[in-house]
Amino acid sequence: MIPQMIIQLLMTGSELMSGNTTDSNSTMISQSLATLGLTVHKKITIGDNQNQLIATIQEMATHSELLIVNGGLGPTVDDLTAQSLALASDCKLEQNEQALAHLQSWCEQRGLKLNSANMKQAMLPIGVDIVPNSRGSAVGFSMYWQKCLIICTPGVPSELRTMLSEEIIPLIESRHPDHPKIITERFQTFGIGESSLQQLINEQLPDWPDSIELGFRAGAPQLEIKIRAAESVPAQEISNWRNQLQQLLGAHIIGSNDCQLAQLLIYLLHEKKKTITTAESCTGGRIATMLTEVAGASSVFEAGFVTYSNSMKNKLLGVKEQSLQNYGAVSQQVVTDMALGALNISGADYVVAVSGIAGPDGGTEQKPVGSVWLAWGTKENLKSYFFRFRYGRKLFQTMVSAAALDLIRRELLECKDTPYYLKEKKAAT
Amino acid sequence: MIPQMIIQLLMTGSELMSGNTTDSNSTMISQSLATLGLTVHKKITIGDNQNQLIATIQEMATHSELLIVNGGLGPTVDDLTAQSLALASDCKLEQNEQALAHLQSWCEQRGLKLNSANMKQAMLPIGVDIVPNSRGSAVGFSMYWQKCLIICTPGVPSELRTMLSEEIIPLIESRHPDHPKIITERFQTFGIGESSLQQLINEQLPDWPDSIELGFRAGAPQLEIKIRAAESVPAQEISNWRNQLQQLLGAHIIGSNDCQLAQLLIYLLHEKKKTITTAESCTGGRIATMLTEVAGASSVFEAGFVTYSNSMKNKLLGVKEQSLQNYGAVSQQVVTDMALGALNISGADYVVAVSGIAGPDGGTEQKPVGSVWLAWGTKENLKSYFFRFRYGRKLFQTMVSAAALDLIRRELLECKDTPYYLKEKKAAT
Repeated sequence: MIPQMIIQLLMTGSELMSGNTTDSNSTMISQSLATLGLTVHKKITIGDNQNQLIATIQEMATHSELLIVNGGLGPTVDDLTAQSLALASDCKLEQNEQALAHLQSWCEQRGLKLNSANMKQAMLPIGVDIVPNSRGSAVGFSMYWQKCLIICTPGVPSELRTMLSEEIIPLIESRHPDHPKIITERFQTFGIGESSLQQLINEQLPDWPDSIELGFRAGAPQLEIKIRAAESVPAQEISNWRNQLQQLLGAHIIGSNDCQLAQLLIYLLHEKKKTITTAESCTGGRIATMLTEVAGASSVFEAGFVTYSNSMKNKLLGVKEQSLQNYGAVSQQVVTDMALGALNISGADYVVAVSGIAGPDGGTEQKPVGSVWLAWGTKENLKSYFFRFRYGRKLFQTMVSAAALDLIRRELLECKDTPYYLKEKKAAT
Repeated sequence: MIPQMIIQLLMTGSELMSGNTTDSNSTMISQSLATLGLTVHKKITIGDNQNQLIATIQEMATHSELLIVNGGLGPTVDDLTAQSLALASDCKLEQNEQALAHLQSWCEQRGLKLNSANMKQAMLPIGVDIVPNSRGSAVGFSMYWQKCLIICTPGVPSELRTMLSEEIIPLIESRHPDHPKIITERFQTFGIGESSLQQLINEQLPDWPDSIELGFRAGAPQLEIKIRAAESVPAQEISNWRNQLQQLLGAHIIGSNDCQLAQLLIYLLHEKKKTITTAESCTGGRIATMLTEVAGASSVFEAGFVTYSNSMKNKLLGVKEQSLQNYGAVSQQVVTDMALGALNISGADYVVAVSGIAGPDGGTEQKPVGSVWLAWGTKENLKSYFFRFRYGRKLFQTMVSAAALDLIRRELLECKDTPYYLKEKKAAT
C-alpha cells in the first residue's frame, strides 16, 4: 500500500441525485489531483439539503486532511454551501469584503446591477481565505477546521476547470509540500481480455510486488493497464517490472497513455507514406468511420467500400459469383477477392476486408453468429484468417473493426507474435 | 413532499477515484429509480479497498431501506464486492450453484474455458437471491441485512442497463408495492436543441401545469423529452397536454420510448419495400455504420460508398472533375453528382450524399469548418441543402449523419414542415 494524503470530495446538488446530470466535476477534480500524484479516498454526493450538508461536512472533515466541496455557491435559495459550512464549523457568516468587491466588478463589467440574490454570494464564514474565480460571479473559499483543509468550489464546470489549474492545485501544493508523490504509468492494450490478462500475469509474473499497484480498465475495444507506485519505490524496480510486463504482453500493447488504435495507424501510415482502403461487409462502414474520426485521415485514406449484399460484392469489388456460390459470403475466397478488388480500384497500398455474421440472425451450424473472415495486407502480401468473436451485434462490429485496425498495425510494425484473438481459433473451411 | 423510501448508492471502483472514468452508472440508476418516482438520498463512491468497502456497506445499510452497490463483481483481484458484503454482514461465502450454472453456460456459449479467475464470480454470500444478468458473466445478487435490501450490480454499463429494466426495477417494485406511483411518458426528438426547445415551450405553451413535470435529456444525436405526473392527475389532462406538445414539435418527434432514427428508417424502408445507398465524404462511413448497426439492415441496404478524396469521388461515383475544380468538393454540384452516381451504381431507390468540412482544419472564409452540403431523395426527386453545424469533429460527424437519416425519414413520411436545423440557414453559393 502506498501512503497518501487522505482526500475526500463532497459533491452537492439535487440534479446529481435525480439522474438529470452526470457528475463530470468530480472526474475533473480527480484528474487535477492526479497531476500531484494524489488520489481521492472517498466521494459523497448529496442533494441540496442543509441538515444533510452540515452532518456530512462534519463527518468528512473529521476523517480527512483535505475536503473539496463542489457546488452550492450560486445566488439561489438552494445554494447552501456557505451557510452549511458556517453551521458545521460553528462560526458566523459575515459579508466578505473581497468577495463583495469581486461581485461588484463582475457585475460592472457586464453592465449588470448587483441584486440582493447576488449579494448572498458575498456572505461567507468569518475568516475564510478567498479562492479567486476569474470566470464567474461566485468566488471559492478555503478554511481549516479540525485540522482539515476545506476548499469550497463552484459547480459550473468551466469555472471549476480554470480555478483548479489557476488556484486550487497551487494552493494544495503550497500547503502540503511534503505529501508522498505517486508515480503513474498507463498503457493501452488490444486483443486480450481482462480475465485472461489477469490470469497470464498471475501465472507468468507470480512475484509481482505489492509496492507496485497494477490496475485494469476495460473499454471497448481497448483495455488500459495502469502501474502505480510511491515515489519511494526505486525507479529501477518500477522499470524492471514494467519491462517484464511489456515483454509478457508484446504487441498486445498499442502504446502508452491514451494511445488509440486508429490514431496510431493513421500516424504509422502517414510516416511510411502509405495509404489504406477498406472493404467491409459485416462491419458496415465502422472501420472507415474509426479511421475518419481521426483528424488528418485524408492523407492516408481515400476511399472505403461497404458491400453489404452479395451482388454488390460482385459489382463493386469484382468478387467472383462462383466464389460466392461455392463458398458463401463468409469465406476465405470472398474476403480475399474483396481485398484485391478494393486495392485495384482505389490504388491504395494496404487493405483490410471483412465478411462475417454479426447476428442475431444469419448463423448456420458451420458458420455460427460471430464468425468472421478477415483479409489484410498488401497486394503482394495478403493474409487471411478466420476467427469468432462472441459478442452482441454492436460490440461484435466494434471488436472486429478494431481487430482489423490492429492487424494492419502489426503488419506495419512487422510484429512476429500472433495476437491472442487469433490463437486457438480453428480456421473454417 | 411525498414520504420517500431512503435509498443510497455505493459506487465502487478505483477508476472512479482516479478520474479515469466518469461515473455514468449512478446517473442510469437514478433515472431508472425515477420511473418509480424514487430519488436517491445519498451516494458514496470509493475505490477497490476491502476494509473501506466493509465499513461503508455497514454504515450505509444501517441508514437506508435500499442500498444499491455497483461494481466489483468481475473476475480480477480488485473485484471485492461479494467478499466485502460477506464480511460486512458476518456471513460466509459459498459457491452459488445458480451463479456457477450461469457462468458455465455463459462460457460454453462463447467457446471459452471456465478458468479459476471466472470461478471467483460464483463465490457469493450464503443465502443471497440471484439477480440474473443476461448480458455478462457476473450475476447480480440481493439480500436483506439490518432491514435494508442490498442489491449488488455489475459495473459494465450495458449489463447494468439491461439488468435495471429487466430485473432490478421489477424487484424493487415487488418488494415495495405501496410507494406512490408516477406516470411517465418518453419521446425521442431530433433536430432541435434543449434550450431552443425550452424557449419554444415557454412561449407557445406558457400555461403548462406544474402537476405535469417536463424533463429533457440531451443525448447525441437525439434529445429525449419526458413527461411525469402523479397517478392522481387525470389521464385526460395528461393526454391533452401531451397532444399540444406533439403538435408544437411536429416531425421533430421521431417516436416514443427508445425509438432510434436508424432503426425507424430501416423499418420504414422495409415496409415500403425500398432500398437505400449512401455516398459519404466528411462522415466517413458513419451513416452506413448507423444503418448497419440495426439488425435486419441487409433487407434495405446493399452498398455504401466512402469517397474521401476528390479523385475517388470522380472514379467511384462519376463526379465530374470540372464540378470538383469549379465548385470544390463541398458544393451542391458535387453532392448531387455523388448522390446520382451512388443511385446508378447500386440500383437503390433512395440515397443520401454528404460532403462537408469536419475540421479542425480545412475550413475557408467562404466555407468554414462545420459547413456541409447534403443531397437526398430519389433519382426523380433529389433535394439538396447547405447548412452548418458548429460542433467538434466527432460530434459534427454524428450530427450530420443523423440529419442525413432524419431527412430520408421525413421524405418517407412525407412531412411538410421544415426541420429546425434547416431553418434560418442560408445556402452557400
